[in-house]
Amino acid sequence: MKEVGIAGFGTVGQRVTKAVDSQPDMKVSGIAKKSADPESRFIDSRYNLYGVSEDDVMHMSNSHHEVEGSLRDLCDISDIIVDCSPSGFGEKNKKIYVEKDTPAIFQGGEDSSVAEMSFNSYAGISRGLDYSKADYIRVVSCNTTGLSRVISSFDTEIEQVDATLIRRGADPDEPSRGPINDIIHSSPTPSHHGRDVNELIPDLSIDTMAVKVPTTSMHAHSVTIRFSNKNFKIDNISSMNRIELIPQEYDVESAGRMNELASANSRPYGSVWENTIWGDSLLIDGKKLKFFQGVHQRSITVPETIDAVRSCIDGGLSDSVVITDDALNINNSIFDN
Amino acid sequence: MKEVGIAGFGTVGQRVTKAVDSQPDMKVSGIAKKSADPESRFIDSRYNLYGVSEDDVMHMSNSHHEVEGSLRDLCDISDIIVDCSPSGFGEKNKKIYVEKDTPAIFQGGEDSSVAEMSFNSYAGISRGLDYSKADYIRVVSCNTTGLSRVISSFDTEIEQVDATLIRRGADPDEPSRGPINDIIHSSPTPSHHGRDVNELIPDLSIDTMAVKVPTTSMHAHSVTIRFSNKNFKIDNISSMNRIELIPQEYDVESAGRMNELASANSRPYGSVWENTIWGDSLLIDGKKLKFFQGVHQRSITVPETIDAVRSCIDGGLSDSVVITDDALNINNSIFDN
Amino acid sequence: MKEVGIAGFGTVGQRVTKAVDSQPDMKVSGIAKKSADPESRFIDSRYNLYGVSEDDVMHMSNSHHEVEGSLRDLCDISDIIVDCSPSGFGEKNKKIYVEKDTPAIFQGGEDSSVAEMSFNSYAGISRGLDYSKADYIRVVSCNTTGLSRVISSFDTEIEQVDATLIRRGADPDEPSRGPINDIIHSSPTPSHHGRDVNELIPDLSIDTMAVKVPTTSMHAHSVTIRFSNKNFKIDNISSMNRIELIPQEYDVESAGRMNELASANSRPYGSVWENTIWGDSLLIDGKKLKFFQGVHQRSITVPETIDAVRSCIDGGLSDSVVITDDALNINNSIFDN
Amino acid sequence: MKEVGIAGFGTVGQRVTKAVDSQPDMKVSGIAKKSADPESRFIDSRYNLYGVSEDDVMHMSNSHHEVEGSLRDLCDISDIIVDCSPSGFGEKNKKIYVEKDTPAIFQGGEDSSVAEMSFNSYAGISRGLDYSKADYIRVVSCNTTGLSRVISSFDTEIEQVDATLIRRGADPDEPSRGPINDIIHSSPTPSHHGRDVNELIPDLSIDTMAVKVPTTSMHAHSVTIRFSNKNFKIDNISSMNRIELIPQEYDVESAGRMNELASANSRPYGSVWENTIWGDSLLIDGKKLKFFQGVHQRSITVPETIDAVRSCIDGGLSDSVVITDDALNINNSIFDN
Repeated sequence: MKEVGIAGFGTVGQRVTKAVDSQPDMKVSGIAKKSADPESRFIDSRYNLYGVSEDDVMHMSNSHHEVEGSLRDLCDISDIIVDCSPSGFGEKNKKIYVEKDTPAIFQGGEDSSVAEMSFNSYAGISRGLDYSKADYIRVVSCNTTGLSRVISSFDTEIEQVDATLIRRGADPDEPSRGPINDIIHSSPTPSHHGRDVNELIPDLSIDTMAVKVPTTSMHAHSVTIRFSNKNFKIDNISSMNRIELIPQEYDVESAGRMNELASANSRPYGSVWENTIWGDSLLIDGKKLKFFQGVHQRSITVPETIDAVRSCIDGGLSDSVVITDDALNINNSIFDN
Repeated sequence: MKEVGIAGFGTVGQRVTKAVDSQPDMKVSGIAKKSADPESRFIDSRYNLYGVSEDDVMHMSNSHHEVEGSLRDLCDISDIIVDCSPSGFGEKNKKIYVEKDTPAIFQGGEDSSVAEMSFNSYAGISRGLDYSKADYIRVVSCNTTGLSRVISSFDTEIEQVDATLIRRGADPDEPSRGPINDIIHSSPTPSHHGRDVNELIPDLSIDTMAVKVPTTSMHAHSVTIRFSNKNFKIDNISSMNRIELIPQEYDVESAGRMNELASANSRPYGSVWENTIWGDSLLIDGKKLKFFQGVHQRSITVPETIDAVRSCIDGGLSDSVVITDDALNINNSIFDN
Repeated sequence: MKEVGIAGFGTVGQRVTKAVDSQPDMKVSGIAKKSADPESRFIDSRYNLYGVSEDDVMHMSNSHHEVEGSLRDLCDISDIIVDCSPSGFGEKNKKIYVEKDTPAIFQGGEDSSVAEMSFNSYAGISRGLDYSKADYIRVVSCNTTGLSRVISSFDTEIEQVDATLIRRGADPDEPSRGPINDIIHSSPTPSHHGRDVNELIPDLSIDTMAVKVPTTSMHAHSVTIRFSNKNFKIDNISSMNRIELIPQEYDVESAGRMNELASANSRPYGSVWENTIWGDSLLIDGKKLKFFQGVHQRSITVPETIDAVRSCIDGGLSDSVVITDDALNINNSIFDN
Repeated sequence: MKEVGIAGFGTVGQRVTKAVDSQPDMKVSGIAKKSADPESRFIDSRYNLYGVSEDDVMHMSNSHHEVEGSLRDLCDISDIIVDCSPSGFGEKNKKIYVEKDTPAIFQGGEDSSVAEMSFNSYAGISRGLDYSKADYIRVVSCNTTGLSRVISSFDTEIEQVDATLIRRGADPDEPSRGPINDIIHSSPTPSHHGRDVNELIPDLSIDTMAVKVPTTSMHAHSVTIRFSNKNFKIDNISSMNRIELIPQEYDVESAGRMNELASANSRPYGSVWENTIWGDSLLIDGKKLKFFQGVHQRSITVPETIDAVRSCIDGGLSDSVVITDDALNINNSIFDN
């Protein structure tokens, strides 16, 4: 049983916790937080609660929480830490992991320099990467995960990828962020997302552009892939568990309906862990493939995070994907219950 | 075991299905739908699927579904039908229920004339209503449920209620509805919501006004209650399971965070079944009480619908509330896990 | 000819500039800004451009602007300064106005302590205030202006005002502000807006509550007024130039359409300077009046600002209102061209 | 003096009216509408008001309007009609224009079959089209106008254009349209916009994809152009009056701020008639050019509509562009006043 410590209990931390709970070979050893709030009370009643710093321990103890110790102490009882802190705090926490000689998985909000290797399951398998050689691994961001999965799915050589990322402006629990009534472009072109994909797939020629729009529901990608020849197979993506090719005849156009279907399937938080490629948007034209895909920012990196934990400790990335998909029921489509 | 048939599998139908599943004395006998789509496939693999009309049976059978029969047939094997059809269709279906002599629960989108009695649990208990005398019961709308609960909680005489309902413009899976960037008032004043409350609490003096705003997340009510005297007790509301008085020190301001906490507690669909009264908005000033409350339009009527089923068949509304709250874990606060 | 200097050229500064331009007895002496940008280029080619500080003068000069001097120098050639700086900067600038013995008009974003008197035209007339006695005057915020106008219009005694302010989350050129998909209440209750009204109308009993919603288009107020007797006259508001009572038969529900009509009438920036009370929302019930009004946050304080300038220098508030309304064509309804 | 009749007085009709008013060689002969409302009152007090049908004449006369006759009568006194009716109504009105032998300009909402030629000024000049040969001309839609302008600006051969159109969901005065909190893709791929460009530029290889997002403010295009060689010149676009290349150093990212600047420049309705290409989004990479451009849906086709009127009657498209740009002050940048 792998003892998995969690640092940070926001959007990602909460979802990783549920996912670890459902793995046959993992257990949540404890969760470290900085402040006393409804989420710390939730942890206190169900998991072992830790502070990040000694000050946090003090503060939460004063708020009548039973705190087991600090992040240092959590390292002592954990085989690995999944750091789900807000961007930039993972790098600060890394000092503790190094001091305690505890491996750690970081999220895409951290600078890539925080880790020895960047992580994506399909890209890693495709390139034969051995993540057990690294102690510090960074799961790339939601947008990069969505792009890397689909690009890695093809076994035909890719000449060029162009993508426009239409990003949600904020998450549902971030009411101070905008924009409210505008479309705000990222500057400069290309955006950093293409370079992030190159950390996983170095030789790929890819250019990305990005805007922010007034929604909290999901990202949408407009993707154009030009292959070296016409023999690419769309089956390459439709056969992947973590890519949901929504049948054309299904009139599913809203992110809200996808979340409803996921919730009906008892997925925690209505998670849509898969890329959702709309079949009615697919264009196959000679060597060119175009489509729209949805990327649920809050959940898409969760399966990869679980794989990162397992393959950091055990190696065996391909095996991990099978276990994760089975435990999360991703091997069944949202539509084929 | 009460055999509960469901007609309609949209937002309400899906949530009622999950709630019936979790009751100790109820079972979903079957679910009737009109068309073949991802939701009908979901039903087909887990429940007994029915068409509403014979045409629907034919249509879904042609789409390779195993259809058990029509709504008429579902009536034959059900003790009661919960009609969750889109507004207006409940009235059409009622002919079938009457013909089959099957009791039915309707939703607030139907005209009140569809039913013999309007339903709210707290208002019903407060007025000592016996719902077992009715065969056709209408659970009032989400906004009316939210108002009726809080008004019925007080044992001090109320002189006047004024409320402004700030309504979400659409549900998350209704992308064609607006407004996008505006605040649209309802006309005329007062809005119908106050009259709807009066169907449950006839002698109350209440005036409501309403606007629609560009959000899918929840309704918010600005409520002013003037009592006959100063001796009203705020404990009256904080002690009710279905009213969550959010402690002032909790900095929980977004609907999104409430849904996250509900999901962490393993509530299906991130349901917030309770009125959420923000403690930091409470004003007690002589005979006057003011506050803001959130009303999650998609889930708030679900506990009442379950109570309506039970008290229609068995009577015993107070007992039903205890069973429902226990089965749904509403007797624990979202914050006191 | 009153020489009017403007400090700050954002939303308010730009609109005040256009309004001063159109007055028969006023002239823009110069406009002071802090940074070189498209707006400073606009000023440079049409008005006398000033920096606020000496550093600003230097900076804009380096950007090839012809800068006449600093805010100190602008004071020397101005009879009065209208300070339209971002909230809090007006207070800093006040030191210069005092040093230079130049009267100044501040905006509602400043603390009320910045000025000797708070300003609203209708409230001032109603109470017989003499603004020529003050050197520093603060025009109250858009929401307070909207409330004060309508309350001051009645000659029947008011017992109680309750209002819920449904506020736009951001202005159209503030893309980083939210919320995107939520309704966020202000805390505590009552909100500060009622107290702000009391600075103008001290003996009024008023309680306000406020939320922010995802729109940039306007504020909407749900207003309930209880009078001492039934003899209040709705004509009191419909006869005021700065209150537009939208006829019931006009199906004008969106802020966007109001802006279109204002633009058709050649109003700069599509300004809607009037309170817009929707006739179809009016409820007259005994001693009680209820209605919704729109408050265009970007333009509603402009006529008051012009009146503040004139009555600070000349006194004669009632006369000023006539001149302002005539110059801006407010004496004609948007609907009666 | 060209007598220009206007049919329809919505978003486009109002803006075309103002633009015709400002042309040295044109005059609004009358405006035809279907219903009595604030806009018809506006027309009645300033222009000659017509009904579309005889019924409309009757109806508006009964509402105390002075109506000069029907669209048939308007044809009699007009050299040309600009039909700004809602989509599909232009085709119905065309029968009248044919019967009356009156030339007409249609908008992009009509099917292209309504007209003999599709219109764009830059594309027409580039291809040497003679619009005086046609009696019925259709100005292409806002998105197609934005794409056609920029594509026609280059004198280097283009191999391929790919564009993702991020469209506003509704106009500011359409509060019933969504989406509120989602990104909705158009189906199928490619979207019709590329084919619309091909009506103007037949040999171009272009693929477009489109989504709708929750904003009313503008469309944004992510554009990728691959040229046959590296010698394309960015000066080709920056030298065009109707393309505003926003300097990188200007921190102008919001549509709202563009409208403010346009309003400061006394443009009616805050119109941004130009494509707005963000300089900070420009990528020049070998034969490839990428950028984001804004397309203000409400105003961008207005200069083209004026050119269509003039070149339909007189020919001389290049000369028309000079006159239009001068009359509307487009020959000065919004930033170079």
